[in-house]
Amino acid sequence: MKALTYHGPCRRTWGEVPDPVVRDPEDAVVRVGESVRTPFADTSLYKLPEDVRNEDALLLADILPTAYEVGVRKGRVGPGDTVAIVGAGPIGLAAILTARLYTPSRVIAVDLAQSRLDAAKRLGADAVLTAAEATPEAVRALSRDGLGVDVAIEAVGVPETFELCTRLVRPGGRVANVGVHGKPAVLHLEDLWNRDVTVTTGLVDTHSTPMLLDLLVAGRLDVAALVTHRFGLDEMQEAYDVFAAAADTGALKVALFRT
Amino acid sequence: MKALTYHGPCRRTWGEVPDPVVRDPEDAVVRVGESVRTPFADTSLYKLPEDVRNEDALLLADILPTAYEVGVRKGRVGPGDTVAIVGAGPIGLAAILTARLYTPSRVIAVDLAQSRLDAAKRLGADAVLTAAEATPEAVRALSRDGLGVDVAIEAVGVPETFELCTRLVRPGGRVANVGVHGKPAVLHLEDLWNRDVTVTTGLVDTHSTPMLLDLLVAGRLDVAALVTHRFGLDEMQEAYDVFAAAADTGALKVALFRT
Repeated sequence: MKALTYHGPCRRTWGEVPDPVVRDPEDAVVRVGESVRTPFADTSLYKLPEDVRNEDALLLADILPTAYEVGVRKGRVGPGDTVAIVGAGPIGLAAILTARLYTPSRVIAVDLAQSRLDAAKRLGADAVLTAAEATPEAVRALSRDGLGVDVAIEAVGVPETFELCTRLVRPGGRVANVGVHGKPAVLHLEDLWNRDVTVTTGLVDTHSTPMLLDLLVAGRLDVAALVTHRFGLDEMQEAYDVFAAAADTGALKVALFRT
Repeated sequence: MKALTYHGPCRRTWGEVPDPVVRDPEDAVVRVGESVRTPFADTSLYKLPEDVRNEDALLLADILPTAYEVGVRKGRVGPGDTVAIVGAGPIGLAAILTARLYTPSRVIAVDLAQSRLDAAKRLGADAVLTAAEATPEAVRALSRDGLGVDVAIEAVGVPETFELCTRLVRPGGRVANVGVHGKPAVLHLEDLWNRDVTVTTGLVDTHSTPMLLDLLVAGRLDVAALVTHRFGLDEMQEAYDVFAAAADTGALKVALFRT
């Protein structure tokens, strides 16, 4: 069958590969483009309810559970909270959506790109700030009592944004790191040691996928705005190019469909 | 009346001061040496049960609640955990005592000084390591499955010990900072981002003091080993000298009594 094979950053090939087979008792062979073998299928595949659109369900494979489990749940977002989400790429946008499940009073999104801040507004951010505008003072001024945000969700993965998050939180606040980091950051313990701050890291385990599916069925989770581009499977190379040039194309998530 | 007055590090005077008076409705005047005015007495003073020794009760004013609230509770120590306590001064030793309230399987103490490690053993540490011995590998080897400790409690307040704590914890582990820091530390997010680690800071609020008093009454908290030296109030200057030279005198906590 035909498949796009990933060989590392910017290296992918499109061509014939062997058909997948069931190797282990927990395997399933699933039709995606043609077919794919899914190991541990008994703990990672879910039957899609009929009234859920494929395109919406796609987002529950990774970005929504990641933002929800590692950002919103680890950060213990609750009703009335002020929540800052630093980074408004797909994960940050998914954090806005899933933070709203707990009815915070204010969601503040921070990003470099105005196009992503516009998307953040569409998805429910109450205030958006460019990185230059997002001084600790400016963000604190948007919080309930001026002391800072209850939860800061880091959705970028560089030291500067992590450090910004630790400066935005109020005493007793939580910093939930979702970003994938390649370098250490500075933790300003000389400021934080007596502030009752909690910093968390984590990797998604997708335990929340069935619950998020149920929210989709109940009409309580509007994920439609996250998909900006759609391609047929035969246009896969072009789809990847559009996604790679997100700054120019405004791509958030790109969906591929069987043609 | 006579009093020792603190004017900053290494600057104290012994002499006459005005008698304390009740200024606000929440004040109390309490006899310590002679007397002291205690603001917000209604939320910070507890009547001492008759069968609790003054010397034991002394320790519940600060170090035991600090170690318990900011170390043990924030670190969520639980039965069966492996707990590393980095720093075996009075706060670290109090963390050993109060961690044991939750019956961890192993308590590992780390310090520079052999005298403090001996005290750690007396207070219930299962293993003690000098700072040189306490490599991440050596500490991990003492944990249940070799992956690291469930909880690392930082009870020193310098970047090196904080960073050591972050290298000792297993995936899913907690670092509870108790130390008072004057400088930033490095947070190795490139290692920690996907390890489900929680880092907490905090300042004691002594909400646990009544509970700890009750444990003393019930005979469930043996704090006696924390007090190494006793002086009369008229020996206050000498008492401070002994405490200041703890490395030579082996002083942990120094108790002063009315003579």
